[in-house]
Amino acid sequence: MKIAKKLDEFGVDYIEGGNPGSNPKDVEFFEKVKDIEFTNAKLVAFGSTRRAGIKPDEDANLAALLRSETSVVAIFGKSWDFHVTDVIRTTLDENLNMIYDSIAYMKQNGKEVVFDAEHFFDGYKANPEYALKTLEVAAQAGADWLVLCDTNGGSFPSEIAQIVKVVVDRFSSIPIGIHCHNDGGMAVANSIMAVEQGVVQVQGTFNGYGERCGNANLCTIIPNLQLKRNFYCVPPQSIAGLTSVSRYISELANMAPNERDPYVGNCAFAHKGGMHVDAILKNPASFEHVPPESVGNERRILMSEVAGRSTILGKIQKVAPWVTKSSPEVQKIIDELKRLEHEGYQFEGAESSFELLVRRALGKDHKFFEVKDFRVLCEEPWQGDYSASAIIKVRVDGVEEVTAAEGDGPVNALDKALRKALEVFYPQLKKMRLTDYKVRVLDTSKATAAKVRVHIESTDGERVWGTVGVSTNIIEASWNALVDSIEYFLYNEMGM
Amino acid sequence: MKIAKKLDEFGVDYIEGGNPGSNPKDVEFFEKVKDIEFTNAKLVAFGSTRRAGIKPDEDANLAALLRSETSVVAIFGKSWDFHVTDVIRTTLDENLNMIYDSIAYMKQNGKEVVFDAEHFFDGYKANPEYALKTLEVAAQAGADWLVLCDTNGGSFPSEIAQIVKVVVDRFSSIPIGIHCHNDGGMAVANSIMAVEQGVVQVQGTFNGYGERCGNANLCTIIPNLQLKRNFYCVPPQSIAGLTSVSRYISELANMAPNERDPYVGNCAFAHKGGMHVDAILKNPASFEHVPPESVGNERRILMSEVAGRSTILGKIQKVAPWVTKSSPEVQKIIDELKRLEHEGYQFEGAESSFELLVRRALGKDHKFFEVKDFRVLCEEPWQGDYSASAIIKVRVDGVEEVTAAEGDGPVNALDKALRKALEVFYPQLKKMRLTDYKVRVLDTSKATAAKVRVHIESTDGERVWGTVGVSTNIIEASWNALVDSIEYFLYNEMGM
Repeated sequence: MKIAKKLDEFGVDYIEGGNPGSNPKDVEFFEKVKDIEFTNAKLVAFGSTRRAGIKPDEDANLAALLRSETSVVAIFGKSWDFHVTDVIRTTLDENLNMIYDSIAYMKQNGKEVVFDAEHFFDGYKANPEYALKTLEVAAQAGADWLVLCDTNGGSFPSEIAQIVKVVVDRFSSIPIGIHCHNDGGMAVANSIMAVEQGVVQVQGTFNGYGERCGNANLCTIIPNLQLKRNFYCVPPQSIAGLTSVSRYISELANMAPNERDPYVGNCAFAHKGGMHVDAILKNPASFEHVPPESVGNERRILMSEVAGRSTILGKIQKVAPWVTKSSPEVQKIIDELKRLEHEGYQFEGAESSFELLVRRALGKDHKFFEVKDFRVLCEEPWQGDYSASAIIKVRVDGVEEVTAAEGDGPVNALDKALRKALEVFYPQLKKMRLTDYKVRVLDTSKATAAKVRVHIESTDGERVWGTVGVSTNIIEASWNALVDSIEYFLYNEMGM
Repeated sequence: MKIAKKLDEFGVDYIEGGNPGSNPKDVEFFEKVKDIEFTNAKLVAFGSTRRAGIKPDEDANLAALLRSETSVVAIFGKSWDFHVTDVIRTTLDENLNMIYDSIAYMKQNGKEVVFDAEHFFDGYKANPEYALKTLEVAAQAGADWLVLCDTNGGSFPSEIAQIVKVVVDRFSSIPIGIHCHNDGGMAVANSIMAVEQGVVQVQGTFNGYGERCGNANLCTIIPNLQLKRNFYCVPPQSIAGLTSVSRYISELANMAPNERDPYVGNCAFAHKGGMHVDAILKNPASFEHVPPESVGNERRILMSEVAGRSTILGKIQKVAPWVTKSSPEVQKIIDELKRLEHEGYQFEGAESSFELLVRRALGKDHKFFEVKDFRVLCEEPWQGDYSASAIIKVRVDGVEEVTAAEGDGPVNALDKALRKALEVFYPQLKKMRLTDYKVRVLDTSKATAAKVRVHIESTDGERVWGTVGVSTNIIEASWNALVDSIEYFLYNEMGM
């Protein structure tokens, strides 16, 4: 739901939300998504043609599509004769009937219909007459779109161009689309080749997520077409939000963003080494195919002290507007920020931790409490309801409090013990609670010795704030984020 | 050195080992590599044309190339007029002289010379006459190869094809090469388009490693050309070793392998969802562009709630071939799978945990070891290098072993203690190590009391396998995945 909303805001035209005939999760999505109002995008439900030998109104998948109540449906059907005979095991004629009937039925029900011609390119290579016949039948049944799918993802760009041209020439009155998979590593190029031949719908996914090697990556295709070929894919003012949309989606999907992704990756505009950096400083176009800010990304000069000073200043001024470029504290904060980012901190979505960092650097911080020590223990086998316990000692204004708590795991035990100890001094902490807790393992190849970044979101019922902690020890990383969250709450409570 | 040896074994023709004029590490490489005897590959040293205004024999970079004592050198020179005037800041004529002199000098010294025409495509688009002139001069100086570079990586496949054709037609007596970067996500396709126009050398890197978005990925280009277009890139018997070479290199480079990489990625032949799996079982060509074994990869059938009964059956039969659709155990396993998935387990990418589940359900499991108890302690402040410690007691064949370990965090401490205890009984465990560790917080709104799912990937240097664990206690979740990983390894080691 969050991703659909974000894509709509970004300005994509169609959002395919799932296959309601295949599983209850997708049914639930279409049920719940009815409450969302989309401003740009049309929502699409996806499903197959009717099964062989039955009528469309007897087919459970088609019924599920109608129950989704989307204005658009995408119907996929077989265009490769081998799939008809060997996989769904029916006759070539019945497959044509299945395509015709399913699309006609959807048209009778008032839908905009996208026909996804599955395995179209493999089908065309094996039996061009039959593959084209499936498109013809779909067109006769009233399909609004004919979309050519490279389902197995193994086609070459020159093949795609040649075959798309045949289709575009033949079906001049129906808009044609393309749907590529990345098994040959060429999904983006294949989509672009198709567009150059007259295709006007590109199906793909953000960050290229998808089965096997993924679908065509829209985060690459959109800027390729819009920035370099002047195609209108999304509203022009949206493009500068591309990097942030890409990262938002990877965050929700809990997938580490690929740093080498074109346009949106963390390394996409990273420069290193004397000669290249020299050239970039003389003129960025020397080693950048587009300006990084055009897609909301940033240039990174690796190994260089001058990197991004103004970017960081902007961040500082958000917290402390009186700080200027020449304030002596700026260098100190930049150094600290760089050190922390190098350690794996990321302050996007954790602005409260950044605010605390700035406070500390500017000497505007206040010590609400001091943690003398803590100890967390997990045992197997364990007795009772909880698998972990924590003992903690805090000191506030010279008064010590020692307490303990049990919890669902070590972090929960520590969280409970800390609050219990602090509530003695700050009863208002009862208002505050955690609403979100995320863990991301950085450098996963270091296995259990890897660093983890913990993101916590908290609320007092009115405000919501985010904090972050990093450590090779998940308990410590959680602890850092937790302490930041409580401190941030206390600053606000005390109006400091 | 190890990578160079591996590439030679694999059968590549040229290995570019670095730029000895730019840094001491590369000088050292060429010094040491003299001791290696290559059977297939020629080693190449890489460097720029002489600097403006001096003679070639006065140039330090060219001297460094000669000192490398490789039979081949690659000389890169500017083909984009803007780079000549605005970056190296010399005249267009002097740049032509620099190219001529440097190549002629290398030819006088008996080298095979590759001329890398830097920014050739951007240069051609800006000033085609001048770009072609740089090639002409290189040819006149005796260059053995003219390589066209898309240095900024932003060109489109159709542009590449068109421009390469001009060059191939014009320089019919010199072999032409291509060197693409991936900033537009099309480096593989661009290389292939160039080959289709007559290019006979493709420069790229294994796994696509390279600055910014990377170089053209040879792990994709080689099978694309060799398996689908019958080009001879490497000896035919080598291709089946591609996946293993790719992983060996990522291992040495300490980069997590990209699981979605074409051909060699762990997901490249992974199938999910009832319909696709059904089709794959009928005929693998239905959803695979090449057979996975052709590149030394494996088909994986992913487990999930949407997987059809036949997927699960196929998976069960891998462990217990005698089980049929109607065996009473099938329902038991399906029920157990559903229960675990409801609890938050996900067996996609954790097929080994699923295999163990099947073994247990069928009573075909073996108790390699029993963990009597463990205890994990984290303290703040801590002394020494490690923030956590674990004590563990295991029992194997009636013999108990008690041991302890410290670690970077509680999970790492427990991981180390468990292995230490078990290696007493199973020394072969030293071969096995963890390559990936992921944590996902399920139901993040429960904050620190939320369930977490831990995903572990392990290797014994040859095979890679994944396991999973779920608990509200991250230590326990990690523990479950860890124990599964070790058990799975032992089943394989013992041939059970």
